[in-house]
Amino acid sequence: MRVAVYRKEHFNAAHRLYNPEWSDEKNDLVFGKCNNPGFHGHNYEIVVKLTGEPDKDTGYVFDMKKLSELIRENVTRKFDHKNLNLDIEEFKNLNPTAENIAVVIYDLLRDKIDNGLDLKIYLYETERNFVEYPA
Amino acid sequence: MRVAVYRKEHFNAAHRLYNPEWSDEKNDLVFGKCNNPGFHGHNYEIVVKLTGEPDKDTGYVFDMKKLSELIRENVTRKFDHKNLNLDIEEFKNLNPTAENIAVVIYDLLRDKIDNGLDLKIYLYETERNFVEYPA
Amino acid sequence: MRVAVYRKEHFNAAHRLYNPEWSDEKNDLVFGKCNNPGFHGHNYEIVVKLTGEPDKDTGYVFDMKKLSELIRENVTRKFDHKNLNLDIEEFKNLNPTAENIAVVIYDLLRDKIDNGLDLKIYLYETERNFVEYPA
Amino acid sequence: MRVAVYRKEHFNAAHRLYNPEWSDEKNDLVFGKCNNPGFHGHNYEIVVKLTGEPDKDTGYVFDMKKLSELIRENVTRKFDHKNLNLDIEEFKNLNPTAENIAVVIYDLLRDKIDNGLDLKIYLYETERNFVEYPA
Amino acid sequence: MRVAVYRKEHFNAAHRLYNPEWSDEKNDLVFGKCNNPGFHGHNYEIVVKLTGEPDKDTGYVFDMKKLSELIRENVTRKFDHKNLNLDIEEFKNLNPTAENIAVVIYDLLRDKIDNGLDLKIYLYETERNFVEYPA
Amino acid sequence: MRVAVYRKEHFNAAHRLYNPEWSDEKNDLVFGKCNNPGFHGHNYEIVVKLTGEPDKDTGYVFDMKKLSELIRENVTRKFDHKNLNLDIEEFKNLNPTAENIAVVIYDLLRDKIDNGLDLKIYLYETERNFVEYPA
Repeated sequence: MRVAVYRKEHFNAAHRLYNPEWSDEKNDLVFGKCNNPGFHGHNYEIVVKLTGEPDKDTGYVFDMKKLSELIRENVTRKFDHKNLNLDIEEFKNLNPTAENIAVVIYDLLRDKIDNGLDLKIYLYETERNFVEYPA
Repeated sequence: MRVAVYRKEHFNAAHRLYNPEWSDEKNDLVFGKCNNPGFHGHNYEIVVKLTGEPDKDTGYVFDMKKLSELIRENVTRKFDHKNLNLDIEEFKNLNPTAENIAVVIYDLLRDKIDNGLDLKIYLYETERNFVEYPA
Repeated sequence: MRVAVYRKEHFNAAHRLYNPEWSDEKNDLVFGKCNNPGFHGHNYEIVVKLTGEPDKDTGYVFDMKKLSELIRENVTRKFDHKNLNLDIEEFKNLNPTAENIAVVIYDLLRDKIDNGLDLKIYLYETERNFVEYPA
Repeated sequence: MRVAVYRKEHFNAAHRLYNPEWSDEKNDLVFGKCNNPGFHGHNYEIVVKLTGEPDKDTGYVFDMKKLSELIRENVTRKFDHKNLNLDIEEFKNLNPTAENIAVVIYDLLRDKIDNGLDLKIYLYETERNFVEYPA
Repeated sequence: MRVAVYRKEHFNAAHRLYNPEWSDEKNDLVFGKCNNPGFHGHNYEIVVKLTGEPDKDTGYVFDMKKLSELIRENVTRKFDHKNLNLDIEEFKNLNPTAENIAVVIYDLLRDKIDNGLDLKIYLYETERNFVEYPA
Repeated sequence: MRVAVYRKEHFNAAHRLYNPEWSDEKNDLVFGKCNNPGFHGHNYEIVVKLTGEPDKDTGYVFDMKKLSELIRENVTRKFDHKNLNLDIEEFKNLNPTAENIAVVIYDLLRDKIDNGLDLKIYLYETERNFVEYPA
């Protein structure tokens, strides 16, 4: 009897998409306005999904208040009101696309959560662009 | 050629999370403010998903108007403007967490719908806390 | 050059609509399912609007972080995960309709905010029912 | 390391549900008000999901700007501000239910996208009625 | 102590914008794709605002359930799943722009509601296009 | 018979709040995490409101397609995927608070629109923080 629980949190950050091994021309060609050297930014929404069996005594798969705190401590406190390229270690050598941000968030949370629970990350860059990992 | 159809309905209800076999202290420790003895409440949103093959003559997997009526008759008419702990038989001995409410809704609907259709329930307790069953 | 700033916060609460001076029959007739004796509940959203001139040095009419804290300290901490009828002094003798809740919130905030700023409250009981005070 | 990317687009269209092989009475019985001879309409939202491995050089599974253009060129430019029954070839002999529209959109996009990427379509007819294909 | 109450309802309808006194060319020039002869359509959302003093005995400016029924009886039952141009008397000689639909809705409701209450209509044609009357 | 029309557009931008005449300490004290030297960012939503009389021949107060183009040409093309502090002339000496951004947008649009129409700007920095000018 497996149930999934989802918790949504948010952070606001600046970023820029580019590949340091490419010329400026190639970066502009590939990333367009997302390659603005002065950065741009988003209101990111994260949804964390955990799947498992509800506990007999609590009726919880995972306490939502604890899940909220876990995401805040490990992800949003780190990313909120930051520049992903300049301020976040994980993106020093990794392009902060929505895809890569979702993978980084997964890696930040995976070992904080019991292995019996499946973990999935949804990241909304805008209301119209979002990603899911693992898919 | 399987297609899934989703229908969203809502109900407003009061509830309280606690385990009658535990002390007040333990209930407060585990459920925190969700254990307020005078209850609190939510605008719940239910999404019911049915998966099957569209009918050749109608183009419907299931008529959405009929699905809406089915959910209203079996679920929302029963739960809307009620106290889940006090007024609903199913929660007399079951903690009304989002996880357990989703399982109860599944059980209320499963035998009302043809077995050839897969059934899944999504329950939103708030915009930021939601669950899925079966997962 | 007057600008208005808006800050949205939320709380989840149980309530029941009834008039203690009326018979049960009249209460049922007037308030219908909102008069369920075991209560029901909502995810309330509050929007607080302050109107004034932006400060020359900060560009702020009012610091949104401070406005958020002010609403949390004076309103949502008090109402969240509570039963408005049973747990909140202001509704001991006042029916907790959306209209009355908005007036109570206004009164809780008015003397915490400089008189040079106009104050208005929007209260969403559901996505489809909401009120504004003063109007 | 598979990641899914989602892009949402929209179009506004008129349609009518009916089966030309049935009598008017049977059409009314089955499709109700959706069979209004003068049509009715919706603000449709499409979500296109592509699943694959992020490219090492770009960090993209698929460039969202290109995905947006692909959907606009092949789907929304064709359907937007149109009458699905009267103006769109694909629905000349196919009832434009949400289920069938999703299948048609899948078929319009499938051969425009590399086979290594899985494709899924979500179509929202209203906020409360939506479908997914393949499911 | 005036308070405003708002109630949101919806209807789905087809329409076409054009002026019968103009040539096809001029209609195309002015109304563009909104002048598609086969019509297009929308999920319209109506918000009705009533402003007055809360009743001492009920705490209501106006009972939201009654307001919902009033809008359904006089507006949405009439417009829902219809073609505004073909099926609705009021638009036989009036272009069904969002502006004109809002004025028509106001006129349908004004004499059903006590004159002591101010009435205002908000009409959402899409999430991004909406109107207010009187303004 | 005055009607208001509203059009919503969006842009994504980076910004930082600080006052160059203050010390770093004072900037941190006043602007907190909004003063991150590497910037942060938002998905901004602009709503432009125009109030006037509907034209007899078109039924329009203002053509929404033209209003959309006007906002895109004068505001969002300029601000989208930019750093407000570094890339936008108007904020070289003006702190890009939501209040100030709304005033700048008003000034960019006012002389592009007939004086007979009242203009108002709503700017959403997040779903929970927004402003209105003039108020």
